[in-house]
Amino acid sequence: MKTVTVDLGDRSYPIYIGRNILSQQNLISQHIHGKQIVIVTNETVAPLYLAKTKAMLNTGDLHTVILPDGEEFKNLTILNQIFDTLLENNCDRQSTLIALGGGVIGDMTGFAAACYQRGVNFIQIPTTLLAQVDSSVGGKTGVNHALGKNMIGAFYQPQCVIADTNTLNTLEDKELSAGIAEIIKYGLLGNEKFFHWLEQNMSQLLARDPDCLAYAIERSCMDKAEIVKKDEKEGGIRALLNLGHTFGHAIEAAMGYGQWLHGEAVATGMVMAASLSEKLHWINAEKYQKIEKLIKQAKLPIHAPDTMTTQQFIELMQRDKKNQGGNIRLVLLKDIGNAVISDDYEATLLLETIEQAISHNARKSSKE
Amino acid sequence: MKTVTVDLGDRSYPIYIGRNILSQQNLISQHIHGKQIVIVTNETVAPLYLAKTKAMLNTGDLHTVILPDGEEFKNLTILNQIFDTLLENNCDRQSTLIALGGGVIGDMTGFAAACYQRGVNFIQIPTTLLAQVDSSVGGKTGVNHALGKNMIGAFYQPQCVIADTNTLNTLEDKELSAGIAEIIKYGLLGNEKFFHWLEQNMSQLLARDPDCLAYAIERSCMDKAEIVKKDEKEGGIRALLNLGHTFGHAIEAAMGYGQWLHGEAVATGMVMAASLSEKLHWINAEKYQKIEKLIKQAKLPIHAPDTMTTQQFIELMQRDKKNQGGNIRLVLLKDIGNAVISDDYEATLLLETIEQAISHNARKSSKE
Repeated sequence: MKTVTVDLGDRSYPIYIGRNILSQQNLISQHIHGKQIVIVTNETVAPLYLAKTKAMLNTGDLHTVILPDGEEFKNLTILNQIFDTLLENNCDRQSTLIALGGGVIGDMTGFAAACYQRGVNFIQIPTTLLAQVDSSVGGKTGVNHALGKNMIGAFYQPQCVIADTNTLNTLEDKELSAGIAEIIKYGLLGNEKFFHWLEQNMSQLLARDPDCLAYAIERSCMDKAEIVKKDEKEGGIRALLNLGHTFGHAIEAAMGYGQWLHGEAVATGMVMAASLSEKLHWINAEKYQKIEKLIKQAKLPIHAPDTMTTQQFIELMQRDKKNQGGNIRLVLLKDIGNAVISDDYEATLLLETIEQAISHNARKSSKE
Repeated sequence: MKTVTVDLGDRSYPIYIGRNILSQQNLISQHIHGKQIVIVTNETVAPLYLAKTKAMLNTGDLHTVILPDGEEFKNLTILNQIFDTLLENNCDRQSTLIALGGGVIGDMTGFAAACYQRGVNFIQIPTTLLAQVDSSVGGKTGVNHALGKNMIGAFYQPQCVIADTNTLNTLEDKELSAGIAEIIKYGLLGNEKFFHWLEQNMSQLLARDPDCLAYAIERSCMDKAEIVKKDEKEGGIRALLNLGHTFGHAIEAAMGYGQWLHGEAVATGMVMAASLSEKLHWINAEKYQKIEKLIKQAKLPIHAPDTMTTQQFIELMQRDKKNQGGNIRLVLLKDIGNAVISDDYEATLLLETIEQAISHNARKSSKE
């Protein structure tokens, strides 16, 4: 088992990563302080891992909330079901909420823990690769509003995270790839060595080799923890974690959430960010191609949906919550392993990047 | 104008207290950083102070949310109306939310500010005496749940508080007295000198003398700020602020929220806490009578509703969110100006206290 410590002063916590660690009772019990526990999970994950999780917790005061599965249920109304269960069972301030599931369950449970009686204990058991590398670090919790994704939430840190690589065996292939997209992001934005490791180990990752998975999760969590430590509330460099996301969010919004997985949209977004960086002569054609190749190898999309228009792309990108007026601020690459936040580019180059991403041939011809 | 600084490190902020300070444009403008402002108020306060508040804010991007007035609207559904307005107007992370109203408006607006995009600027303009002395300090924000009061919320500090004593001129007499109950609390729990000042100045306070009001507000905010500074998240001594509240909450719950004003219930609760303290021989009969007399002088109730039973009182008190099993933890008095948190008392003395509070004659005869 590997342990990554997220260092945030009195809000520091460990991420445990390993094979079958969900069965290690002492791991979780040391992070539970009160008597009352509520597990929040969904209809997909409950049949797979709920019994195993319950077996690990020796308390008589254990309750479960099983939510419907999907991003469309990540809202205030469904959140209230968690509060209902907490109050119906007279849960006090020493209670612990456990999130068992992917990113949606983690975000909602974390937000419920942040708000219930103004803050109770919270433990994460992420069961998707994306949640293990992404939601494990950073404390971003929240729900969607009809008019915007993740618009209502809190920064709230868990007591610990248990990332059991065995839970990834039940994951669909495209969910696995979506998780790998975020892993590639860490190589691209700040860790060239890790990028090369990924080039060499992609086939083992796709084959779900437990040691390879554990290493990739550990590396991603460490890199993310380093950034979050420097900027917990996203005042500055934490925005680098949005590499590929401004493009990606536009794709998700245009296609309707759920059509493209978040990781797939981010993958295409990273290719687009690399493409614009190449046009700015910040990276050369060879590096651009390495990036595109690795993302393709991970079985992720490298082109934007051809049903989108450039106009639509720009409008959706402008709606991004990081904008403060002016040119769209983007995370771009000065090199593989060196990302920067910039709005200092010719607007026409952005338009060209989008046009090429939508119309694959155009991109191809520009490379000839 | 008086200024009390609430000292909480990088979350410190000033409370401005004075006559007609709502008209001082520079006061508020220095605490607004972005361009977008949303004022949240209610149907009662809007006709009185909304135009004045708007006049003070010179921005083109100003929006208003007018909520229905009352504790029964302090819930997640009504909270969502604030998010609707923020999102419909594309408010960004630099936006400022202004709470214009009493405690309910302050709690809801503060919670909306804590959650919108995981935290935006927040300014409080409390227009009731209770809100000026109580909600101004401490950062407690939140909404009610069908199964419990203030069960969903956050600790979130404002940029500043503007307590204009002129707004108290439109307050009903019983609302004024309810605010004075919380002011008396600060004398009782830690400031004997202030208790004596209140004994001497109660009639001027009731006559709404602006200088007297400003002094009482300043003193209460300073005393509360001192306690909150030591214990921002209510791990320890902050619980002293609940003097009278455990008894008071039981009265509010039994009578249905809104029947007794919060301050009225707290007033009776403080008399009951003093009565139990006398039974424990922690304070003598003379001090008990001084307390009862001051509360009576403030036109506040000193007896619990005679429709309540002792059994009901105990059950409702046990539901209090500060309980962790065992005897009910109460804030009691070792002296006027010296409160302690204790569950070290004979259970029969608590029963006797409640019986006397419900049945006035019993109390009277015990004093003879």
